[in-house]
Amino acid sequence: MIERADRESRLTEADHLSVRVWLRMLACTTLVERRAATRLRQNFATTLPRFDFLSQLERNGNGLRMTEISDRMMVTGGNITRIADQLESEGLIARSPAPGDRRASVVQLTPAGECAFVEMARRHEEWIVEMFAALDEHERRVLYAVLAKLKGHLAETERKR
Amino acid sequence: MIERADRESRLTEADHLSVRVWLRMLACTTLVERRAATRLRQNFATTLPRFDFLSQLERNGNGLRMTEISDRMMVTGGNITRIADQLESEGLIARSPAPGDRRASVVQLTPAGECAFVEMARRHEEWIVEMFAALDEHERRVLYAVLAKLKGHLAETERKR
Repeated sequence: MIERADRESRLTEADHLSVRVWLRMLACTTLVERRAATRLRQNFATTLPRFDFLSQLERNGNGLRMTEISDRMMVTGGNITRIADQLESEGLIARSPAPGDRRASVVQLTPAGECAFVEMARRHEEWIVEMFAALDEHERRVLYAVLAKLKGHLAETERKR
Repeated sequence: MIERADRESRLTEADHLSVRVWLRMLACTTLVERRAATRLRQNFATTLPRFDFLSQLERNGNGLRMTEISDRMMVTGGNITRIADQLESEGLIARSPAPGDRRASVVQLTPAGECAFVEMARRHEEWIVEMFAALDEHERRVLYAVLAKLKGHLAETERKR
Protein backbone atom coordinates (compact mmCIF):
# COMPACT_ATOMS: atom_id res chain seq x y z
CA MET A 1 0.00 0.00 0.00
CA ILE A 2 2.04 2.88 -1.30
CA GLU A 3 -0.47 5.56 -0.35
CA ARG A 4 -0.46 4.39 3.25
CA ALA A 5 3.30 4.60 3.51
CA ASP A 6 3.27 8.08 1.97
CA ARG A 7 0.61 9.24 4.31
CA GLU A 8 2.54 8.00 7.34
CA SER A 9 5.82 9.48 6.20
CA ARG A 10 4.33 12.92 5.62
CA LEU A 11 3.71 13.27 9.34
CA THR A 12 6.37 13.79 11.95
CA GLU A 13 6.35 12.02 15.31
CA ALA A 14 4.94 15.15 16.96
CA ASP A 15 2.11 15.25 14.42
CA HIS A 16 1.26 11.63 15.12
CA LEU A 17 1.08 12.53 18.79
CA SER A 18 -1.63 15.14 18.07
CA VAL A 19 -3.71 12.53 16.25
CA ARG A 20 -3.23 10.01 19.06
CA VAL A 21 -4.17 12.61 21.68
CA TRP A 22 -7.28 13.51 19.69
CA LEU A 23 -8.41 9.90 19.29
CA ARG A 24 -7.91 9.31 23.00
CA MET A 25 -9.80 12.47 23.94
CA LEU A 26 -12.63 11.48 21.60
CA ALA A 27 -12.71 7.99 23.14
CA CYS A 28 -12.87 9.40 26.70
CA THR A 29 -15.57 11.91 25.80
CA THR A 30 -17.62 9.21 24.08
CA LEU A 31 -17.31 6.88 27.10
CA VAL A 32 -18.35 9.59 29.56
CA GLU A 33 -21.23 10.77 27.34
CA ARG A 34 -22.55 7.26 26.75
CA ARG A 35 -22.49 6.42 30.42
CA ALA A 36 -24.18 9.69 31.40
CA ALA A 37 -26.80 9.09 28.67
CA THR A 38 -27.48 5.56 29.93
CA ARG A 39 -27.92 6.77 33.49
CA LEU A 40 -30.14 9.69 32.51
CA ARG A 41 -32.33 7.21 30.64
CA GLN A 42 -32.40 4.68 33.49
CA ASN A 43 -32.92 7.18 36.31
CA PHE A 44 -34.93 9.95 34.71
CA ALA A 45 -36.23 8.48 31.43
CA THR A 46 -34.61 11.41 29.65
CA THR A 47 -31.87 12.04 27.11
CA LEU A 48 -28.59 13.94 27.03
CA PRO A 49 -29.87 16.57 24.53
CA ARG A 50 -32.93 17.22 26.76
CA PHE A 51 -30.66 17.51 29.81
CA ASP A 52 -28.33 19.85 27.90
CA PHE A 53 -31.30 21.97 26.76
CA LEU A 54 -32.55 22.38 30.35
CA SER A 55 -29.05 23.09 31.62
CA GLN A 56 -28.61 26.01 29.19
CA LEU A 57 -31.86 27.51 30.53
CA GLU A 58 -30.81 26.96 34.13
CA ARG A 59 -27.61 28.93 33.50
CA ASN A 60 -29.59 31.77 31.92
CA GLY A 61 -32.43 32.56 34.28
CA ASN A 62 -33.80 35.37 32.10
CA GLY A 63 -34.49 32.93 29.31
CA LEU A 64 -32.97 32.30 25.90
CA ARG A 65 -34.17 32.42 22.33
CA MET A 66 -34.18 29.13 20.44
CA THR A 67 -31.21 30.21 18.31
CA GLU A 68 -29.23 31.00 21.46
CA ILE A 69 -30.03 27.59 22.94
CA SER A 70 -29.02 25.92 19.71
CA ASP A 71 -25.67 27.80 19.66
CA ARG A 72 -24.91 26.88 23.27
CA MET A 73 -25.89 23.20 23.22
CA MET A 74 -22.87 20.96 23.52
CA VAL A 75 -24.55 17.70 22.64
CA THR A 76 -25.39 16.98 19.02
CA GLY A 77 -28.02 14.67 17.63
CA GLY A 78 -31.18 16.11 19.11
CA ASN A 79 -33.77 18.03 17.10
CA ILE A 80 -34.04 21.17 19.18
CA THR A 81 -37.54 22.15 18.03
CA ARG A 82 -38.87 18.70 18.89
CA ILE A 83 -37.12 18.80 22.29
CA ALA A 84 -38.67 22.21 23.06
CA ASP A 85 -42.15 20.97 22.07
CA GLN A 86 -41.80 17.92 24.33
CA LEU A 87 -40.44 19.86 27.30
CA GLU A 88 -43.20 22.45 26.92
CA SER A 89 -45.94 19.81 26.78
CA GLU A 90 -44.46 18.27 29.95
CA GLY A 91 -44.62 21.67 31.66
CA LEU A 92 -40.86 21.93 32.20
CA ILE A 93 -40.33 25.01 30.03
CA ALA A 94 -42.51 27.94 28.96
CA ARG A 95 -42.31 30.31 26.00
CA SER A 96 -43.11 34.02 26.08
CA PRO A 97 -42.76 36.79 23.46
CA ALA A 98 -39.25 38.26 23.26
CA PRO A 99 -39.07 41.85 24.57
CA GLY A 100 -38.98 44.20 21.60
CA ASP A 101 -39.46 41.47 19.00
CA ARG A 102 -42.93 40.01 18.86
CA ARG A 103 -42.01 37.49 16.18
CA ALA A 104 -39.41 35.81 18.42
CA SER A 105 -40.01 33.96 21.67
CA VAL A 106 -37.94 33.46 24.78
CA VAL A 107 -37.76 30.08 26.50
CA GLN A 108 -37.49 29.75 30.29
CA LEU A 109 -37.60 26.96 32.85
CA THR A 110 -40.88 26.69 34.74
CA PRO A 111 -40.68 26.11 38.51
CA ALA A 112 -41.43 22.42 37.80
CA GLY A 113 -38.65 22.40 35.18
CA GLU A 114 -36.22 24.01 37.63
CA CYS A 115 -37.08 21.42 40.25
CA ALA A 116 -36.72 18.49 37.84
CA PHE A 117 -33.47 19.83 36.46
CA VAL A 118 -31.88 20.38 39.88
CA GLU A 119 -32.37 16.74 40.80
CA MET A 120 -31.01 15.51 37.45
CA ALA A 121 -28.02 17.85 37.67
CA ARG A 122 -27.20 16.67 41.19
CA ARG A 123 -27.08 13.04 40.06
CA HIS A 124 -25.28 13.93 36.83
CA GLU A 125 -22.56 15.65 38.86
CA GLU A 126 -22.18 12.57 41.06
CA TRP A 127 -21.67 10.40 37.98
CA ILE A 128 -19.08 12.80 36.55
CA VAL A 129 -17.21 12.94 39.88
CA GLU A 130 -17.22 9.13 39.98
CA MET A 131 -15.94 8.85 36.40
CA PHE A 132 -13.13 11.36 36.99
CA ALA A 133 -12.14 9.81 40.32
CA ALA A 134 -9.21 8.11 38.57
CA LEU A 135 -7.42 11.46 38.47
CA ASP A 136 -5.97 13.12 41.54
CA GLU A 137 -6.48 16.84 42.05
CA HIS A 138 -3.15 17.77 40.48
CA GLU A 139 -3.96 15.78 37.34
CA ARG A 140 -7.37 17.36 37.11
CA ARG A 141 -5.85 20.83 37.38
CA VAL A 142 -3.27 20.01 34.70
CA LEU A 143 -5.98 18.64 32.42
CA TYR A 144 -8.09 21.75 33.04
CA ALA A 145 -5.19 24.06 32.18
CA VAL A 146 -4.08 22.20 29.03
CA LEU A 147 -7.66 22.02 27.75
CA ALA A 148 -8.03 25.78 28.40
CA LYS A 149 -5.09 26.41 26.08
CA LEU A 150 -6.57 24.12 23.43
CA LYS A 151 -10.01 25.68 23.73
CA GLY A 152 -8.56 29.18 23.45
CA HIS A 153 -6.71 28.25 20.27
CA LEU A 154 -9.82 26.64 18.78
CA ALA A 155 -11.96 29.68 19.57
CA GLU A 156 -9.29 32.02 18.20
CA THR A 157 -8.85 30.14 14.90
CA GLU A 158 -12.63 29.78 14.60
CA ARG A 159 -13.02 33.57 14.60
CA LYS A 160 -10.34 33.96 11.91
CA ARG A 161 -11.93 31.48 9.50
CA MET B 1 -33.56 28.61 45.33
CA ILE B 2 -32.99 26.27 48.22
CA GLU B 3 -32.47 23.20 46.04
CA ARG B 4 -29.71 24.96 44.14
CA ALA B 5 -27.86 25.91 47.31
CA ASP B 6 -28.17 22.35 48.61
CA ARG B 7 -26.90 20.94 45.41
CA GLU B 8 -23.88 23.22 45.44
CA SER B 9 -23.05 22.55 49.05
CA ARG B 10 -23.13 18.78 48.63
CA LEU B 11 -20.10 18.98 46.36
CA THR B 12 -16.58 19.74 47.51
CA GLU B 13 -14.23 22.03 45.60
CA ALA B 14 -12.47 18.98 44.14
CA ASP B 15 -15.80 17.62 42.92
CA HIS B 16 -16.59 20.88 41.20
CA LEU B 17 -13.24 20.67 39.47
CA SER B 18 -14.23 17.32 37.94
CA VAL B 19 -17.40 18.83 36.52
CA ARG B 20 -15.52 21.84 35.19
CA VAL B 21 -12.88 19.58 33.59
CA TRP B 22 -15.62 17.49 32.00
CA LEU B 23 -17.47 20.49 30.57
CA ARG B 24 -14.23 21.85 29.14
CA MET B 25 -13.29 18.48 27.62
CA LEU B 26 -16.75 18.19 26.09
CA ALA B 27 -16.46 21.72 24.69
CA CYS B 28 -13.05 20.99 23.13
CA THR B 29 -14.21 17.68 21.67
CA THR B 30 -17.32 19.32 20.22
CA LEU B 31 -15.27 22.14 18.65
CA VAL B 32 -12.78 19.72 17.07
CA GLU B 33 -15.54 17.39 15.84
CA ARG B 34 -17.62 20.20 14.34
CA ARG B 35 -14.65 21.69 12.53
CA ALA B 36 -13.56 18.29 11.20
CA ALA B 37 -17.17 17.61 10.11
CA THR B 38 -17.38 20.96 8.30
CA ARG B 39 -14.14 20.33 6.45
CA LEU B 40 -15.07 16.77 5.50
CA ARG B 41 -18.29 18.13 4.06
CA GLN B 42 -16.59 20.99 2.21
CA ASN B 43 -13.65 18.99 0.88
CA PHE B 44 -15.07 15.52 0.38
CA ALA B 45 -18.86 15.96 0.54
CA THR B 46 -18.88 13.34 3.29
CA THR B 47 -19.79 13.08 6.97
CA LEU B 48 -17.93 12.23 10.18
CA PRO B 49 -19.87 8.96 10.71
CA ARG B 50 -19.02 7.85 7.14
CA PHE B 51 -15.36 8.75 7.71
CA ASP B 52 -15.39 6.89 11.04
CA PHE B 53 -16.98 3.84 9.37
CA LEU B 54 -14.28 3.73 6.67
CA SER B 55 -11.53 4.28 9.21
CA GLN B 56 -12.62 1.23 11.24
CA LEU B 57 -12.36 -0.88 8.08
CA GLU B 58 -8.98 0.60 7.19
CA ARG B 59 -7.64 -0.47 10.59
CA ASN B 60 -9.01 -3.98 10.11
CA GLY B 61 -7.90 -5.12 6.68
CA ASN B 62 -9.53 -8.54 7.02
CA GLY B 63 -12.93 -6.94 7.30
CA LEU B 64 -15.44 -6.54 10.12
CA ARG B 65 -18.99 -7.62 10.79
CA MET B 66 -21.57 -4.86 11.08
CA THR B 67 -21.87 -5.39 14.85
CA GLU B 68 -18.10 -5.03 15.22
CA ILE B 69 -18.13 -1.77 13.22
CA SER B 70 -20.99 -0.48 15.36
CA ASP B 71 -19.10 -1.30 18.60
CA ARG B 72 -15.95 0.42 17.39
CA MET B 73 -17.44 3.59 15.94
CA MET B 74 -16.58 6.63 18.03
CA VAL B 75 -18.98 9.05 16.41
CA THR B 76 -22.65 8.87 17.26
CA GLY B 77 -25.60 10.05 15.22
CA GLY B 78 -25.22 8.01 12.06
CA ASN B 79 -27.47 5.13 11.09
CA ILE B 80 -24.88 2.45 10.44
CA THR B 81 -27.05 0.33 8.12
CA ARG B 82 -27.84 3.34 5.97
CA ILE B 83 -24.17 4.35 5.90
CA ALA B 84 -23.16 0.85 4.78
CA ASP B 85 -25.80 0.83 2.03
CA GLN B 86 -24.59 4.21 0.73
CA LEU B 87 -20.91 3.30 0.84
CA GLU B 88 -21.63 0.01 -0.92
CA SER B 89 -23.62 1.70 -3.66
CA GLU B 90 -20.72 4.12 -4.17
CA GLY B 91 -18.34 1.18 -4.53
CA LEU B 92 -16.25 2.11 -1.46
CA ILE B 93 -17.01 -1.03 0.55
CA ALA B 94 -17.98 -4.60 -0.32
CA ARG B 95 -19.77 -7.30 1.66
CA SER B 96 -18.96 -11.00 1.56
CA PRO B 97 -20.29 -13.98 3.57
CA ALA B 98 -18.58 -14.42 6.94
CA PRO B 99 -16.35 -17.53 7.10
CA GLY B 100 -18.19 -20.27 8.99
CA ASP B 101 -21.41 -18.27 9.32
CA ARG B 102 -23.38 -17.91 6.13
CA ARG B 103 -26.04 -15.75 7.75
CA ALA B 104 -23.55 -13.01 8.67
CA SER B 105 -21.51 -10.87 6.30
CA VAL B 106 -18.12 -9.24 6.54
CA VAL B 107 -17.55 -5.71 5.29
CA GLN B 108 -14.26 -4.64 3.70
CA LEU B 109 -12.88 -1.59 1.92
CA THR B 110 -12.68 -1.95 -1.87
CA PRO B 111 -9.50 -0.67 -3.57
CA ALA B 112 -11.49 2.47 -4.52
CA GLY B 113 -12.60 2.82 -0.91
CA GLU B 114 -9.03 2.42 0.34
CA CYS B 115 -7.86 5.08 -2.09
CA ALA B 116 -10.63 7.53 -1.17
CA PHE B 117 -10.10 6.96 2.54
CA VAL B 118 -6.33 7.48 2.39
CA GLU B 119 -6.78 10.95 0.91
CA MET B 120 -9.48 11.88 3.45
CA ALA B 121 -7.38 10.58 6.33
CA ARG B 122 -4.34 12.55 5.20
CA ARG B 123 -6.30 15.80 5.17
CA HIS B 124 -8.10 14.92 8.42
CA GLU B 125 -4.73 14.44 10.11
CA GLU B 126 -3.55 17.82 8.87
CA TRP B 127 -6.64 19.47 10.37
CA ILE B 128 -6.10 17.73 13.71
CA VAL B 129 -2.43 18.71 13.78
CA GLU B 130 -3.42 22.32 13.07
CA MET B 131 -6.08 22.33 15.79
CA PHE B 132 -3.69 20.86 18.40
CA ALA B 133 -0.85 23.20 17.41
CA ALA B 134 -1.65 25.35 20.47
CA LEU B 135 -0.05 22.68 22.66
CA ASP B 136 3.69 22.06 22.76
CA GLU B 137 5.00 18.53 22.74
CA HIS B 138 5.28 18.33 26.54
CA GLU B 139 1.66 19.44 26.97
CA ARG B 140 0.50 16.90 24.39
CA ARG B 141 2.38 14.13 26.20
CA VAL B 142 0.87 15.18 29.54
CA LEU B 143 -2.62 15.28 28.03
CA TYR B 144 -2.05 11.87 26.45
CA ALA B 145 -0.92 10.37 29.79
CA VAL B 146 -3.72 11.88 31.89
CA LEU B 147 -6.35 10.79 29.36
CA ALA B 148 -4.85 7.28 29.41
CA LYS B 149 -5.48 7.10 33.14
CA LEU B 150 -9.04 8.38 32.71
CA LYS B 151 -9.74 5.96 29.87
CA GLY B 152 -8.37 3.04 31.87
CA HIS B 153 -10.63 3.89 34.81
CA LEU B 154 -13.67 4.24 32.53
CA ALA B 155 -12.97 0.90 30.84
CA GLU B 156 -12.39 -0.78 34.21
CA THR B 157 -15.59 0.52 35.82
CA GLU B 158 -17.51 -0.28 32.62
CA ARG B 159 -16.57 -3.95 32.96
CA LYS B 160 -17.69 -4.04 36.60
CA ARG B 161 -21.14 -2.61 35.93
